[in-house]
Amino acid sequence: MVPQRRRTAGEAVKAIKYDRKLASIIDHTLLKTDARKKDFDRLCEEAKQYRFQSVCVFSGDVEYVAGKLKGTRVIPIAVVGFPHGQMTPVAKAFEAHDAITRRGAQEIDMVINVSALKSKHYSLVLDDIQQVVRACEGKTVKVIIETALLTTVEKICACCLAKAAGARYIKTSTGKEEGGATVEDVRLIREVVGEELLIKASGGIKTREFAYELIRAGANRIGTSSSVALVTGGSGKGGY
Amino acid sequence: MVPQRRRTAGEAVKAIKYDRKLASIIDHTLLKTDARKKDFDRLCEEAKQYRFQSVCVFSGDVEYVAGKLKGTRVIPIAVVGFPHGQMTPVAKAFEAHDAITRRGAQEIDMVINVSALKSKHYSLVLDDIQQVVRACEGKTVKVIIETALLTTVEKICACCLAKAAGARYIKTSTGKEEGGATVEDVRLIREVVGEELLIKASGGIKTREFAYELIRAGANRIGTSSSVALVTGGSGKGGY
Repeated sequence: MVPQRRRTAGEAVKAIKYDRKLASIIDHTLLKTDARKKDFDRLCEEAKQYRFQSVCVFSGDVEYVAGKLKGTRVIPIAVVGFPHGQMTPVAKAFEAHDAITRRGAQEIDMVINVSALKSKHYSLVLDDIQQVVRACEGKTVKVIIETALLTTVEKICACCLAKAAGARYIKTSTGKEEGGATVEDVRLIREVVGEELLIKASGGIKTREFAYELIRAGANRIGTSSSVALVTGGSGKGGY
Repeated sequence: MVPQRRRTAGEAVKAIKYDRKLASIIDHTLLKTDARKKDFDRLCEEAKQYRFQSVCVFSGDVEYVAGKLKGTRVIPIAVVGFPHGQMTPVAKAFEAHDAITRRGAQEIDMVINVSALKSKHYSLVLDDIQQVVRACEGKTVKVIIETALLTTVEKICACCLAKAAGARYIKTSTGKEEGGATVEDVRLIREVVGEELLIKASGGIKTREFAYELIRAGANRIGTSSSVALVTGGSGKGGY
């Protein structure tokens, strides 16, 4: 046995092996009602350490994390109308506009009005997204369609309306309903929106293998609270 | 043999047996490049005689038929952007506005921009329909989606966008492509738009039986050039 020199703390951090490519498309997410400042501190530290794309939090928490992330490349994202989406379009747009213009959010993940979609009130679903897109003044808007609650026809309609309204991403799920991202849904969304729009897969993504499957199916961004485990654990075989 | 008194001309007309209920939802259609005045005269005469819902003609012919139909309950309909739909939204809206405000059209059957739909340029498809709806100042707009050219996803998107844009009807076909109305498409359209929007089945409807099938599947209006044959011929068994 060859005796090994003990690493310094600095060397230990540098030596961490993790999937940098995967990390670069992960929205590191914390959406818990009982989260504390220290939880957000840790979220931001991890995001900086693993170079995640962003941190994703409630609009009421985005100002705090935006402060923590100042001077880094990590993007602060605020969810809006989360998780039920059934506020009025003006209220949802106000929440988005406030987050973007006064709280440091650089992207918005909004939830559609699922109830209006199910009532086939498509003009309201459209107007709701359009108002948020306008309120975000050119910043990226992701439209959460909550796939777990929708029929195939409803998923297609939601994607079509989101694209017509000028959204940049379709996002599968809030993560608050049973059933999150699936490979089939990512494929269906891609079929509806084409190559121009981007897809964020989210909800129940707890392993690296599953993240890769979703990426191969067409996902461009991964939303998860298991980010550190995803980029450090698992075999990651196959890549993307 | 009992000798029969010969009918007078007036009695003969009154004695015609035809399916009045079916006639009342038929758009009696003439969309031929080489149609002459006498063809439109006959179209209008038949529409009055059989009490069809309307006559449906090119926007350039609607003023003439509107004159012929004055004082009757038969509605003059103009098709717009027919049959390819690939003019600009402003041009399509202008054609519709002119037909409604100056040529006596009471309803507009517009063709969507199929090419834009296939390119997943949903905002253009939406804007195109919205502009026509606005130009028609509250009059009924039917949106022809040309089902024969579309995939299932495209049919769903077209219906969803047409409803979001404020159309009153989805219309299946121009009748100029191979493949017109089908029972399956009428059912699919109904699934997408719900009960509020109406459906006009058109294209290749040449028998009364087929018309009934479409009506049972959810069609509210029938567009055909075989109107007289439809209401006078066939067994019509089953009804609707």
